[in-house]
Amino acid sequence: MTLVHAYAAPREAAPLEKTTIERRELGPHDVLIDIAFAGICHSDIHTVRGDWGGQQYPLAPGHEITGTVAAIGSDVTKHAVGDRVGVGCLVNSCGECRNCQRGEEQYCSNGAVGTYGAVDRDGTITQGGYSEKVVVTEDFVLRIPDALALDVAAPLLCAGITTYSPLRHWNVGPGTRVAVVGLGGLGHMGVQIAHALGAEVTVLSQTLSKKDDGLRLGADHYYATSDSETFRSLRGSFDVILNTVSAVIDLRAYLSLLDVGGSMVCVGAPGEPLAVNVSSLIGGRRSLAGSNIGGIRETQEMLDFCAEHGIAAQIEVIPASAINDAYERVLASDVRYRFVIDAATFAD
Amino acid sequence: MTLVHAYAAPREAAPLEKTTIERRELGPHDVLIDIAFAGICHSDIHTVRGDWGGQQYPLAPGHEITGTVAAIGSDVTKHAVGDRVGVGCLVNSCGECRNCQRGEEQYCSNGAVGTYGAVDRDGTITQGGYSEKVVVTEDFVLRIPDALALDVAAPLLCAGITTYSPLRHWNVGPGTRVAVVGLGGLGHMGVQIAHALGAEVTVLSQTLSKKDDGLRLGADHYYATSDSETFRSLRGSFDVILNTVSAVIDLRAYLSLLDVGGSMVCVGAPGEPLAVNVSSLIGGRRSLAGSNIGGIRETQEMLDFCAEHGIAAQIEVIPASAINDAYERVLASDVRYRFVIDAATFAD
Repeated sequence: MTLVHAYAAPREAAPLEKTTIERRELGPHDVLIDIAFAGICHSDIHTVRGDWGGQQYPLAPGHEITGTVAAIGSDVTKHAVGDRVGVGCLVNSCGECRNCQRGEEQYCSNGAVGTYGAVDRDGTITQGGYSEKVVVTEDFVLRIPDALALDVAAPLLCAGITTYSPLRHWNVGPGTRVAVVGLGGLGHMGVQIAHALGAEVTVLSQTLSKKDDGLRLGADHYYATSDSETFRSLRGSFDVILNTVSAVIDLRAYLSLLDVGGSMVCVGAPGEPLAVNVSSLIGGRRSLAGSNIGGIRETQEMLDFCAEHGIAAQIEVIPASAINDAYERVLASDVRYRFVIDAATFAD
Repeated sequence: MTLVHAYAAPREAAPLEKTTIERRELGPHDVLIDIAFAGICHSDIHTVRGDWGGQQYPLAPGHEITGTVAAIGSDVTKHAVGDRVGVGCLVNSCGECRNCQRGEEQYCSNGAVGTYGAVDRDGTITQGGYSEKVVVTEDFVLRIPDALALDVAAPLLCAGITTYSPLRHWNVGPGTRVAVVGLGGLGHMGVQIAHALGAEVTVLSQTLSKKDDGLRLGADHYYATSDSETFRSLRGSFDVILNTVSAVIDLRAYLSLLDVGGSMVCVGAPGEPLAVNVSSLIGGRRSLAGSNIGGIRETQEMLDFCAEHGIAAQIEVIPASAINDAYERVLASDVRYRFVIDAATFAD
């Protein structure tokens, strides 16, 4: 057991504070990672505050982790000391169910192990990336391509794969008309990836305040959803709508933007159910779907894709001492587009 | 203009009564059909009663029509006098939009013309199959294969294609685990078609009262949804759920029956919106979808498929004088599984 510096919530709804957490000794298949950067995901905030159910405290969040391999267990073959690596939302799964076998560990029938606040397969509660080091079994450690700097790569481990996986699954490519709803941490990755896949990309955002950013990131069009004319003029215009917004929205209005056979894919869930008019689906063979991050194999594919296409997150690097302020800014949508914590500051 | 005997609703919410309606003179592309049988679809009842919006009266419903070609217009090439033919839910469309061009006239961007109660492209209001004869433009007339009797073929024109199209679109075949929700007019066709496509078919019905029928029609399994154990034991068991029930249902319970990547396809819409927990979709990359009948080309494909596989509707043939009683029995789910009107009795 090793004690490492970290930032953790001491109890529900409390601000995060500097502390130490334990990391297990290296097992034969484990990789010890010196963390360089950890992204701040909206989920971190909801989880540590208990919005999504009770947690064990103290709890260090963080599932957008990049760093360097510091040591490896005796049987590790996939990674070597000095390798640039990343860890995303998952650190373990059963490995045996049908979903794990086909590389979709995020849907593990026996329950994939989240990077923080989850019961690991050894019975301990996982602690996330807001810390100096982390120990992860080698199968859940990703390679960061040389072309990606570790700071801008960190958010790819959640925001990148969360948008890449559905865009691939719903066959987005040249000729596909994609709308990305919301230009935040997820949306700004979705726009870049959909554009790199060759799609015609439209951003649907509440206002036009981020229009210049959206077009620079690769969007072909940008509309304000606060303008009702948007819904009239874009009726039936999209093959795929990637909804990155977790708020309650008017589904009928958004579904009307889909062409025949189109799919609206949600990657964030509002706290309450949405009302869906089944006739909105029947009238154009439309689908309302959801997608949850991606498996390890696909996450590696996404990292390689981003490196190849020069795609990365737009970030603001902060010291650990600024985490609580950053949380408030995330909740106020006041970040373009991801905060990334410099892990060298966890010990300050 | 020709006057023909028919059964029509004289005004909203009134019982149907014997009357005469007008059929247009044959245009160059028109086919005059001597109707042999007309199925009674649930939609007929809702439409003539005004449940789905105001109508012009008198209105003769009926969009499950079979018969024989009695005459053809000068330029007709697809059908000949004496041919056994059918007409389904559509009698016209623009023919020019992208959806029409790809054979999906049901999603015509300019509005497909329904077989009754719709404004035809010549401005008249269409009158349905509860009548002795009908005139339809040749492109919307289907061939009934010799292997199918005209009475049991009639319901295929709506109930058959409404279930065939989504089963094909969602790639149902050998190895697919399909649940059919509801064993009524639509469901009893869905079971037969899914079975003939090679799928493993499960019926989910309120009770087990029709279990013997379901198994005889090709279902491998049959469960009562009134038994909460059904939802526990079948969790994650299906690739496709074909929901033929228009009532409000507990979507969360049904979506939990889908395996990862599964789709629940609704072919009937309840009058009010359903509540959908987006997390039910995200947690297993699930889709909630809808599908509306099928295009003309696919309807012909379905008829040929049914003939080849010995599939037809299970029917109860009635005279026109029994239509109003039949309506009450349809609303009470007291029919196995479709009423078909003998068109020879419209003049009685």
